[in-house]
Amino acid sequence: MPKTKAVIITIGDELLIGQTIDTNSAWIAKQLNPLGIDVVRRVAVGDTEDAIRYALDEELPKADIILLTGGLGPTADDITKPLLCEYFGGKMIVDERVRTHVTDMFQRRNRPFLERNLKQAEVPDVCTVLFNRIGTAPGMLFHKDGKIVISMPGVPFEMVAIMEDEVLPLLKAKYISDAIVHKTIVTIGEGESFIAEKIEDIETALPKHIKLAYLPSPGLVKLRLTGHGDDKAVLEPEVARYQDKIAERLGNIVVAKEDLTIEEILGLSLKQKGKTLALAESCTGGYISHLITQIPGASEYFKGGVVSYLNAIKTSVLHVDAAIIEAHGVVSEQVASAMAQQVRNLLKSDYGFGVTGILGPGMEDGKVSLGTVWIAVSDGNETTTKQLKLFYDRIRNKESAATLGMMLMWKFINHIS
Amino acid sequence: MPKTKAVIITIGDELLIGQTIDTNSAWIAKQLNPLGIDVVRRVAVGDTEDAIRYALDEELPKADIILLTGGLGPTADDITKPLLCEYFGGKMIVDERVRTHVTDMFQRRNRPFLERNLKQAEVPDVCTVLFNRIGTAPGMLFHKDGKIVISMPGVPFEMVAIMEDEVLPLLKAKYISDAIVHKTIVTIGEGESFIAEKIEDIETALPKHIKLAYLPSPGLVKLRLTGHGDDKAVLEPEVARYQDKIAERLGNIVVAKEDLTIEEILGLSLKQKGKTLALAESCTGGYISHLITQIPGASEYFKGGVVSYLNAIKTSVLHVDAAIIEAHGVVSEQVASAMAQQVRNLLKSDYGFGVTGILGPGMEDGKVSLGTVWIAVSDGNETTTKQLKLFYDRIRNKESAATLGMMLMWKFINHIS
Repeated sequence: MPKTKAVIITIGDELLIGQTIDTNSAWIAKQLNPLGIDVVRRVAVGDTEDAIRYALDEELPKADIILLTGGLGPTADDITKPLLCEYFGGKMIVDERVRTHVTDMFQRRNRPFLERNLKQAEVPDVCTVLFNRIGTAPGMLFHKDGKIVISMPGVPFEMVAIMEDEVLPLLKAKYISDAIVHKTIVTIGEGESFIAEKIEDIETALPKHIKLAYLPSPGLVKLRLTGHGDDKAVLEPEVARYQDKIAERLGNIVVAKEDLTIEEILGLSLKQKGKTLALAESCTGGYISHLITQIPGASEYFKGGVVSYLNAIKTSVLHVDAAIIEAHGVVSEQVASAMAQQVRNLLKSDYGFGVTGILGPGMEDGKVSLGTVWIAVSDGNETTTKQLKLFYDRIRNKESAATLGMMLMWKFINHIS
Repeated sequence: MPKTKAVIITIGDELLIGQTIDTNSAWIAKQLNPLGIDVVRRVAVGDTEDAIRYALDEELPKADIILLTGGLGPTADDITKPLLCEYFGGKMIVDERVRTHVTDMFQRRNRPFLERNLKQAEVPDVCTVLFNRIGTAPGMLFHKDGKIVISMPGVPFEMVAIMEDEVLPLLKAKYISDAIVHKTIVTIGEGESFIAEKIEDIETALPKHIKLAYLPSPGLVKLRLTGHGDDKAVLEPEVARYQDKIAERLGNIVVAKEDLTIEEILGLSLKQKGKTLALAESCTGGYISHLITQIPGASEYFKGGVVSYLNAIKTSVLHVDAAIIEAHGVVSEQVASAMAQQVRNLLKSDYGFGVTGILGPGMEDGKVSLGTVWIAVSDGNETTTKQLKLFYDRIRNKESAATLGMMLMWKFINHIS
C-alpha cells in the first residue's frame, strides 16, 4: 500500500534569518508519524507571495497533504491568507463563529479591539475553517486535485491547539492505514562507531522494512529502529525482537529501551526506588534543576537545590568548609564532594549532587583549565566523583555537564560503575 | 546588484519524524546574514539517495550557494558522501591530513580505533576538504556551474566549528558585497495588533527597501526592521532613523533597541547599576537561574539562588515563616514576597526575587487554580508583587512565568510601574 506523504511548509523571514528556531515542524512530524503519514520534506520560505506560491506549486505534486504554518497574524507582514484565497480561487467572507470568538478574546483580556483584529475573522469561502481555541487567527483547510492543504498560524501553542482540536482527528479518520513502529534504545558512554561495530552483523541482517538510525548527542547515543508494514500486530513484536537483540548485545551501556531523555531515565530510577534528590549547582546555574523539573511528577523525587553561582554562596548557604576551598581550589574533587554532601544534609534528601567547574571564558579562576568540571553524588555514606574535560563553547559545555552529571547520578543510584 | 542567495538542505530522517529539532539552519542563517547572503529557502529531506539527489537538482538553480548538513557520520545510515562523490563526478581518495587527525582523536580519547573510522578520512577527489577540528567527519566543498555546494556533518558543534574555521572566512572573502542592516526594538506588555495600530502610519510610509516584521512571544513582541542597499554608510543611519521613530512612538513599552533577550536586558540593567540579584524559585524549578547564567559575565550581578521545589524547602532553607504559608497558602502574594525577601537576606544580594505557582497538572494544591503564579521582587525596603494567570501547558507556562518574572525585575530595578 502506498504511504501517505506530507510536506511541511513553514513561512516566515524570521526562520530564514535565523531569528527563530523552527520547533513546529518537529512537533507536527511527531504527531503525523503514528498515523502512518510520512513527512517526506520540510521547506522553509520567506514572507513573500512569490516564495509561498512557488513552494505550493512545487510541493503539491510531492505529497498528499501539505501543512503550512506561519503568515496568518494580524499585522502587515502577513500575506498568506489572501494569497491562499486567490490560489484556491475563493473570495474573502466573514466567519461568524470566528468573529464572536475574536471579540470575546479581546474583551476577556481587557484589550482594545481594533479594526484590524476583525480581519482575523475573514476567511476564504473555499476553505473549511479550523477553529483556533486559544488565538485569533483561524486555521484553514483546502482541497485541490485530491490533495489537502492545511494552513495554521506560526505561534507554536496556537498551531498545537488547532492540530489537536481539528487536524489530527480529521487525519486519523481519513488516513490511518499501514502500520509504523518505532523502538528506541538509549545508550551512554560509548560512541557511534563503537556501537555500530558491535552490532554490525545484526544491522546488516535487518529486513528491508526495518531501518536503524544512530542519533548521537554529547555522552549519549540513541538507536532508533523504524519498521513499516501492513499489520501492526505482526510488526510490533518483530521490531521489538530486534530491539531486544541489539540491547542484549550492547549490555550495560543501555540505559533505556524507550525514547526517553536522561532526565526522564533518572526520574524513573528515583521513583522506582522511592528516593529523593537535591542539587548544588555552580557552573550549570540551575540548568539541571530546570531539566529535572520539566518532567511531570518530578516533585515526587526532586526536593530542590541551591544555585551557588558565586563562590561565597558555597560557604554561606551550603556551608562548605572554607578551608576545603582554600586548600583545593573551588573547582576540585573535594569541593564537588562537599557540595553534594552539604546539599543532601540541607535539603534532607536521600541523594545529593554537586557540580563545580569552568565552562567558558570569563569563569576562569587561574587554577584549573577551561572546560574542567568536577561532579559528585552522595548518599551520605558513600560519595562518588568524576572529573570532566569539556572542550566546546560555554553553552554546549553546560549541556554536556548536565547530561554527564545526570548520568553519574543514574549510575550511582543503580550501583553501576 | 543581485543578492547572493543560499539554500540550506538538512539531511536526516530524525528531522522528518520530529526526533530532532533543527537548530543548525537558524545558526547558519544568522552567520550568512551579515555577509549579505540571503537564505531564500530551507529544505529538510530524509536519509535516502533519491531524496538528497532530488533536493540538489531542485535547489541548485535557485541559489548561488547550497549548504548541506547531516548524513556524514561513520555509521551505515550515512549515505551522503558517496552520493556527493558520484553527483560531482569524482572518486574516493584518502585525505592524509584527515587520516592523521582521526587517528589522533581516537588515541587522545582512549577509544578503540575501528576500520570504519578510517572511512571518515576518505573524500571525493573533486572536493576541497573543510577541516573538522573537533570531529571525525570532514566537511567538503564542491563547485558546479559557478555555484558552491558545501557539505558538513549534522552534529551541531562540529558544523559550527567547520563554518567558523573554514566556510565563513571563505564566503566573506568571496561574497561580501551589498549591505544589509537589521534593527530591532523589543517591547513588553502589549500585543502585536496594538503595536501595529499605533505605528500604522510609520509602517505604511516605510520605503520599499526597508521591511518591518513582528515577532511575538509570550509577554514580549520584537519589531525587526531590515534594510537592503548598496552602501552601508547610507543605509545604517536610514534604518536607525525609522527605528528611533517607532521607538519614540511606542514610548515606555520599549525595553531595548537591540536584538536582546529579556535575560540580557535584565543583566544589562543590573550591570549598569552595579547591583546584584538572587532568586528563590519554586514552580520554575531553576529555569530563571539557568537563563540568567546563559549570559557571559552573569557572575558580575547574579549571586545564585534556591530552588525550593518542595514546599518544605521554603521554610527549612529559605526560612519563610511557616505561619505565612499556613495562613495564605503556598501560592500566595505573601509567600512570593517572603521568598524574595528571604533569598535576598540569605544570599546578601541587592535584589531578591521569588516565584511560587501551579504551572501544570500534578502541581495543584487545591487552593488556587491551575496557572496561578505569584511573583515578587524586593530591594529590602520595598517589595513589589504580581499575580499571573497562565493558560497554556506546563512547559509553556514555565517559559511565560520566567519571562514575566524577569520583566517584573527589570521594571522594579528601573523604577517603571
